[in-house]
Amino acid sequence: MSEQEALVVFTPSGRRGRFPVGTPLLQAARALGVDIDSVCGGRGLCGRCQVTVCEGEFSKHGIASSADSLTPSAENEQQFIRRRGPLKPGRRLSCSSQLLDNCVIDVPAESQVHRQIVRKRAEVFDIELDPIVRLYYVEVQQPDMHLPTSDLRRLKDALDFEWRLKELWSDIRVVQEVQGALRSGDWKVTAAIYDDQRIIAVWPGFQSRIFGMAVDIGSTTIAAHLCNLQSGEVVASSGRMNPQIRFGEDLMSRVSYIMMKPGGDEEMTRAVRQALNDMAFELANEAGIDLTEIIEVTFVGNPIMHHLLLGVNPIELGGAPFALATGESVSGLWATEIDLFIHPNARIYVLPCIAGHVGADTAAIILSETPYLNEELTLLVDVGTNAEIVLGNRERLLACSSPTGPAFEGAQISCGQRAANGAIERVRIDPETLEPRFKVIGSDLWSNEEGFAEETKAWGITGICGSGIIEVMAEMYLAGIITQDGIVDGGLAARSERIVADGRTWSYVLDHNEERTLSITQNDVRAIQLAKAALYAGIRLLMDKLGVDSVERIGLAGAFGSHIDVKYAMVLGMIPDCPLENVRSVGNAASTGARIALLNKKARHEIEDQVQQVEKIETAVEARFQEHFINAMAIPHKTDAFPHLRGRFTLPEPRFIERDDDGSRRRRRRKRVA
Amino acid sequence: MSEQEALVVFTPSGRRGRFPVGTPLLQAARALGVDIDSVCGGRGLCGRCQVTVCEGEFSKHGIASSADSLTPSAENEQQFIRRRGPLKPGRRLSCSSQLLDNCVIDVPAESQVHRQIVRKRAEVFDIELDPIVRLYYVEVQQPDMHLPTSDLRRLKDALDFEWRLKELWSDIRVVQEVQGALRSGDWKVTAAIYDDQRIIAVWPGFQSRIFGMAVDIGSTTIAAHLCNLQSGEVVASSGRMNPQIRFGEDLMSRVSYIMMKPGGDEEMTRAVRQALNDMAFELANEAGIDLTEIIEVTFVGNPIMHHLLLGVNPIELGGAPFALATGESVSGLWATEIDLFIHPNARIYVLPCIAGHVGADTAAIILSETPYLNEELTLLVDVGTNAEIVLGNRERLLACSSPTGPAFEGAQISCGQRAANGAIERVRIDPETLEPRFKVIGSDLWSNEEGFAEETKAWGITGICGSGIIEVMAEMYLAGIITQDGIVDGGLAARSERIVADGRTWSYVLDHNEERTLSITQNDVRAIQLAKAALYAGIRLLMDKLGVDSVERIGLAGAFGSHIDVKYAMVLGMIPDCPLENVRSVGNAASTGARIALLNKKARHEIEDQVQQVEKIETAVEARFQEHFINAMAIPHKTDAFPHLRGRFTLPEPRFIERDDDGSRRRRRRKRVA
Repeated sequence: MSEQEALVVFTPSGRRGRFPVGTPLLQAARALGVDIDSVCGGRGLCGRCQVTVCEGEFSKHGIASSADSLTPSAENEQQFIRRRGPLKPGRRLSCSSQLLDNCVIDVPAESQVHRQIVRKRAEVFDIELDPIVRLYYVEVQQPDMHLPTSDLRRLKDALDFEWRLKELWSDIRVVQEVQGALRSGDWKVTAAIYDDQRIIAVWPGFQSRIFGMAVDIGSTTIAAHLCNLQSGEVVASSGRMNPQIRFGEDLMSRVSYIMMKPGGDEEMTRAVRQALNDMAFELANEAGIDLTEIIEVTFVGNPIMHHLLLGVNPIELGGAPFALATGESVSGLWATEIDLFIHPNARIYVLPCIAGHVGADTAAIILSETPYLNEELTLLVDVGTNAEIVLGNRERLLACSSPTGPAFEGAQISCGQRAANGAIERVRIDPETLEPRFKVIGSDLWSNEEGFAEETKAWGITGICGSGIIEVMAEMYLAGIITQDGIVDGGLAARSERIVADGRTWSYVLDHNEERTLSITQNDVRAIQLAKAALYAGIRLLMDKLGVDSVERIGLAGAFGSHIDVKYAMVLGMIPDCPLENVRSVGNAASTGARIALLNKKARHEIEDQVQQVEKIETAVEARFQEHFINAMAIPHKTDAFPHLRGRFTLPEPRFIERDDDGSRRRRRRKRVA
Repeated sequence: MSEQEALVVFTPSGRRGRFPVGTPLLQAARALGVDIDSVCGGRGLCGRCQVTVCEGEFSKHGIASSADSLTPSAENEQQFIRRRGPLKPGRRLSCSSQLLDNCVIDVPAESQVHRQIVRKRAEVFDIELDPIVRLYYVEVQQPDMHLPTSDLRRLKDALDFEWRLKELWSDIRVVQEVQGALRSGDWKVTAAIYDDQRIIAVWPGFQSRIFGMAVDIGSTTIAAHLCNLQSGEVVASSGRMNPQIRFGEDLMSRVSYIMMKPGGDEEMTRAVRQALNDMAFELANEAGIDLTEIIEVTFVGNPIMHHLLLGVNPIELGGAPFALATGESVSGLWATEIDLFIHPNARIYVLPCIAGHVGADTAAIILSETPYLNEELTLLVDVGTNAEIVLGNRERLLACSSPTGPAFEGAQISCGQRAANGAIERVRIDPETLEPRFKVIGSDLWSNEEGFAEETKAWGITGICGSGIIEVMAEMYLAGIITQDGIVDGGLAARSERIVADGRTWSYVLDHNEERTLSITQNDVRAIQLAKAALYAGIRLLMDKLGVDSVERIGLAGAFGSHIDVKYAMVLGMIPDCPLENVRSVGNAASTGARIALLNKKARHEIEDQVQQVEKIETAVEARFQEHFINAMAIPHKTDAFPHLRGRFTLPEPRFIERDDDGSRRRRRRKRVA
């Protein structure tokens, strides 16, 4: 080894090379193609290039390595520490440290450009951080009478020289601000570059962070996550009712409103955009950032939400043939074009819609769950007013929407209600006595446990929510209160006072208190039968198209998926047979898909491609759908899978299925709803 | 020849081929690559594909040809005639006529896609019509439950199928309107496509026309032409004062206003944009079109006008080093981004600026005059508050700006005034008697002709305008009233009462009336000397850089160039020696350049390339500029070219230099100024 050179080994990549003593570590890393981040271009401003010297006489790489292998902390690094606080122990800025001797250098995950954002669920891929907007710090040449180039030209030249960014375009609003930024930043600025192609923002001096917002616009709730685009971290989350609810509870009533009232679509567009502005403000406040630091927003939503967000009248989606105005992704549009006031040059990205009934939310679920990458046959179900169903694997992917109606959400059920404190969400019925016990949202106690009355006194027991309806129906079936055909068995009235006549049919009284009587009527049972038959028929139709009799994995998306106990869904025959351990809630996978698109630009092309390829099935024109629907009215359905469960005393305690990163948060919020 | 085929010869291209009897003529033309326009795709709606059958037993092409060689007028053609009036004699719609027998078909110029728009001046190229926005009529497939594609997708498919337009993007505002347009147009729509890439407008049914506006924003006046983008024709023109004048007469006083008053730049931006909206409204009214039929606007202007239009504070252009925010062209920007309210998706194109003093107006002059295509060495001069100078040929092109000050515009001259009725614009001085005669704007009579007093009574004789100043100075020099050094010769007071003492110097009394005395003072002479020395020094500097001693062609741009008599400019030594017949007014060449960019998209790339290549010379840092300036103070200058003219009795009547298409219009307007 020459006295003038030092051997450096980078971990975890294992790349190694010899460099002249005095070479800055960042430069050595670049020369070896080691992935180390930097925004400031090696000026000791951004602190993203931190590394750790591995100490030890003989590391596993066979060389001695110590803190002395690098130059002592230089002025740049000292300034950084004075400004931003001490580095973690053993950490150094690789741009400000020079090689003195052989060493082993570890590049921690957070110093890598394309670092992974770990997702909690084992069966899904981590998100690779690769946002479409990136920051670049540059020092720009000052103007000179001898070289009459424009300020923008010199900024572009600096971005080319320092970062190899070529042939950049720039927003008109950047042109308007570039001269001020260059001068107030003393010719040092940070540029935000969109897709390596376009300058969309310029800040004087060093700007260390930008943020993005991932939004899922549901017909009922809007969920938004604010993410740091440099770290991928979710820094704040917010959920609120979709204000369009005042124009109609569900999608069809909103479309009806528009049909009745000219301009109604514009009212709804204004309402949702206003809510988005409010949420952005709230999130920025919560995270302690400036609104103008939000530079991109990604959106998902069903086709009607998608159209209303974009200012497109969704009336065509209200009736056959359900023609979308567009299903393509909307990419690079100024946020101001949808009246969103964050950074004035911020962009939006809207995921593609699949078909008139199958929206960008379903596309986002596909992106989050990536069935198109897997061998195993995956069924993804998102239950709302309609159920969106995706089935397939990396060979083929099919999607459809099935008209379940809102019964699963508690609508059309005599005592149904939205999930809120006081709503029954878990039910057990003793098959001997036919006596029920239940839990309500807001309390962890069962109704037969001590203290239950006190805990629930504040709000009472007000109704039954979607997951409660599934459970009570299944328990009634298991206890023999309803037959396989869905008839409430009046013969049991002799055994229990809970079976009461209701005209020519019978009801089951779940609870009777001062305020109200909560019963499951024959009509309620019929409503759920219709809904679950529609869902099952849709799934079955896709299975037919694929020529399969079973699925290997089931993901249940959204609030419904997070709250139901999947066993009961199977008891009722809502979903096809599948090993229970392979049935999971995928949480708010739509929201996760929006977040993936926000953090990784390649994911956008991926989902755009997939949406092109997915086979769109329209249930309304498929004769077999009707056939499956009729067969699926029975409980569980004609290919009865759970006869052995009937008459068993009790089922085990509900298996709370794992939630992903979004699910738990959503759960907490739910309890807070008044 | 087979009985089943017919030979068709198209003129003027001379292309010929045999086709089965019954082949539509348009289809035969397409097969032979004959350039015939069509917007409606051969449906007999647009009438652009008109041709004439050449009649005669044996035309020069050696075949018989008669009206009977084509099928009789079909229903399509009859409908077209009922709707739009009769065709010119002998004309047929080539889409609705089928070949019956051999024939010779003439394609008139207006039926060609890339037709030439003839310019009046012989030495410039005609404009090839090739606008960036084109109309395409299509019939779109209706939505179908079995094929759940979006309406936009099916529109794109139709544009691909019928017009081979692939991978189109579309504006969000098109997405918002596409469903309504398709349905109200019964699935037939006309799309406006920008640069073969992007759908920017959709009209229900057949839309036959779109318009563009070409605007030259001068510091004093704004000139706008409304052009039919299908024919290239100017359908209306408008000129008005730049409303920014209320913030400052010339550019520097406007920049001073901004320096003094924060927000002053925004006031001026608003003012010019308001004027542009007013002009667009006025032009649309005059042409009888809807504002929303204006789909693109091109702009030229000096750097300060350019910046203010775009909402960029021009303060940096007010002092060294005169840094532009950007010099690049602005392409494809929504007109709404500069608050221009025409078609909501209309685009703007702003020509590139060359340097801090040399703007998009100069680029437009270069585009109009194309020195970069010519062998001969061309000098282009645009005189305003500064003079922009371009010199070169297809080998090399140089540009600079020379600080002439506003003397040529009548400012800084004791009796100077803007060109308006009552201003002296032509002057002759009898070298014997030193008596003057002159003409004023608004009258065609010389002051010594009968009826002059009566004709000018309405406004009087109020001052002297720019072209008058040049003439009186040159005539004073030729009559010996001023010396070569620019001294008013007091010794002549003995010979003429018109030479009067003015403190320690002498003046020449041009006119004396009840209202005022119009004199040319020693200071006036000095002001003109300084201005013309600056102009000449700038030209000389570029000649030095090119290593040449003379130029082959001179073009004088703008109002100044249109009104001065070039002989006198040479007498004073404002411009270098050049055969008089090669010195021309190029009219409002800046405006013509804007019109070329509007009508021909390739011209945009051409001028963008040229602006990159032109060598920018900054006079302020060139030592030789000062030297030339001092030498050029003398009349004409140290390399005196016109000594033989001195003392001649009279010069021939002014040679009114040809004006181009814009010039004459401008002239007429000028007379109307109150």
